Amino acid sequence: MTDKRPLIAIPMGDPAGIGPEITAKALAKKEIYEICRPVVVGDVQVFQKAIGIIGANININLISNPAEGAYDFQTVDFIDLDNIQMEEFEYGQVQAQCGKASYEYVNLSVELANKGEVDAIATTPINKESLRAGLVPFIGHTEMLGELTNTDEPLTMFEVQNMRIFFLTRHVSLKEAISQMTKERVHEYLLMCDKALKRLGLNSRKMAVAGLNPHSGENGLFGSEEIDEIEPGIKLAQEDGVNVTGTVPADSVFFQALSGKYDAVLSLYHDQGHIAAKMTDFHRTISITNGLPFLRTSVDHGTAFDIAGKNIAESISMEECIKLAAQYAPKFTNNTMD
Amino acid sequence: MTDKRPLIAIPMGDPAGIGPEITAKALAKKEIYEICRPVVVGDVQVFQKAIGIIGANININLISNPAEGAYDFQTVDFIDLDNIQMEEFEYGQVQAQCGKASYEYVNLSVELANKGEVDAIATTPINKESLRAGLVPFIGHTEMLGELTNTDEPLTMFEVQNMRIFFLTRHVSLKEAISQMTKERVHEYLLMCDKALKRLGLNSRKMAVAGLNPHSGENGLFGSEEIDEIEPGIKLAQEDGVNVTGTVPADSVFFQALSGKYDAVLSLYHDQGHIAAKMTDFHRTISITNGLPFLRTSVDHGTAFDIAGKNIAESISMEECIKLAAQYAPKFTNNTMD
Repeated sequence: MTDKRPLIAIPMGDPAGIGPEITAKALAKKEIYEICRPVVVGDVQVFQKAIGIIGANININLISNPAEGAYDFQTVDFIDLDNIQMEEFEYGQVQAQCGKASYEYVNLSVELANKGEVDAIATTPINKESLRAGLVPFIGHTEMLGELTNTDEPLTMFEVQNMRIFFLTRHVSLKEAISQMTKERVHEYLLMCDKALKRLGLNSRKMAVAGLNPHSGENGLFGSEEIDEIEPGIKLAQEDGVNVTGTVPADSVFFQALSGKYDAVLSLYHDQGHIAAKMTDFHRTISITNGLPFLRTSVDHGTAFDIAGKNIAESISMEECIKLAAQYAPKFTNNTMD
Repeated sequence: MTDKRPLIAIPMGDPAGIGPEITAKALAKKEIYEICRPVVVGDVQVFQKAIGIIGANININLISNPAEGAYDFQTVDFIDLDNIQMEEFEYGQVQAQCGKASYEYVNLSVELANKGEVDAIATTPINKESLRAGLVPFIGHTEMLGELTNTDEPLTMFEVQNMRIFFLTRHVSLKEAISQMTKERVHEYLLMCDKALKRLGLNSRKMAVAGLNPHSGENGLFGSEEIDEIEPGIKLAQEDGVNVTGTVPADSVFFQALSGKYDAVLSLYHDQGHIAAKMTDFHRTISITNGLPFLRTSVDHGTAFDIAGKNIAESISMEECIKLAAQYAPKFTNNTMD
């Protein structure tokens, strides 16, 4: 009988951060093995150390490709890149070897996903400074994945408690974000969001767009962006057959989505959607990168150098990240976005 | 023995809205009478009708001033203004008599609070259109209370699950809000917030100011308002002895406040604090108006004309609103703000 559990590659992240620990902690849970076959890509000595630190009862099965794994609970199937010099290794420090190593884990994971040897990638934190020290020419996962897969504009989606949030703008000032809220961009993003939901296997794709101003501007009383740009953009998407409504006042739309009224919300700027997600469940807010040739989920926290190697970090986010990858993988279609 | 339960006036709101119903529902709960002595100001026929609709086992004790009340569970002490013609009354409709009546309930409640005959006011929804139809020259509670008490700028605070949120700006467009974020305004508001917390009886008054841009601008990378205006404003307040920190990225600060790290957060714009509060608990988000000569709490929803008189509306918000008034009343100091 074929094993139907999806294969998920987990690049273990920056060795000096909490990535190896939270990966080990998550994989010490039986429920993870019930829903998927996880394969860790990393340095086995660092991972062994992490297992010791958290005091888990886990063995390691070294493999060279995912097909060789046994995927039994309490034995972690592991692809060892053997790229950390342990005598120079230190937790919580920016190290060139760690930056370089963390990139190599992602790189191999992408390769496995591209070849179809895994069904999805669930990533752990990497560190901007370490990447720079390691002369890796990317500042983070998004840029790295974009380049490695030739994807122009990876589309980030948050998911928490079945609420999905897209972002019209992200890492720009709020002023600049407002100036980017044109009807063309709203239209284009709604088409992308709809495709992304389709690729995730969702048949019901009812979306809502949040308003920008208090009470969505109250008919132009507090700002006219809704009338001038956002709602005309929504209309264009509707004309293209996208099931979308709005604008809906931002202090109601996320609550309504959480109650099941919408399958996804388009947030207009970074903090609008971030606040909504984080206040719903800070640790279970998971990021899904759409638009790549494969499914990729990610925790939404950093390397946490201050607590790395101390058995303090919790693995809730990592577990959720793996679970979401396992949940979407069977339905995910790897057609490209357009 | 003196009754230590605080006396709380509840103007019953627009008769055509859900105010009378949710008031009756809330007062049908024993726990409310354990913590306070509520006195309703309204029209007794409308209230009687509401009791019938919700099917509660409640009597009414008509009184002419709060001192006459018995304040026993299952008997609502009621000041009847007898200002609704029942033959013309209809649920869910904008009616001049209702707008006018709702104003008169607030007006009398303010009078009672000003004379010290009640310790606080907990308000129910009124309707903008009905006020206009009734020729009442105010668009809402805030303006009404400001005028009736000669308060220039009532300071709204949200409270939900022990998280308190103030607002630097509210009902203006987001663009306009950004332009109002000057260091002078931040400074002035932090002083007002600190005084407001003091009046509410809080000894610990650690505040944080949310950032405007993603990651609080990441040192100027995504916007410079934090560096140019907001943080200098915080520094001025610190120099005046206010216990405040910031900016703290907006997608973390509210979660941290909820975890007990701060006693209050200054939100920079309407939706920032609204999203945080509503996602924490939509129905238990209560508004407290600071800067008035007395304590005033309020539900943060409207008259809900579409469901009025149908026994659909829940009273969670109203109960929370009364509870918060009861909680703060004993410690509230009615010195003016400056």
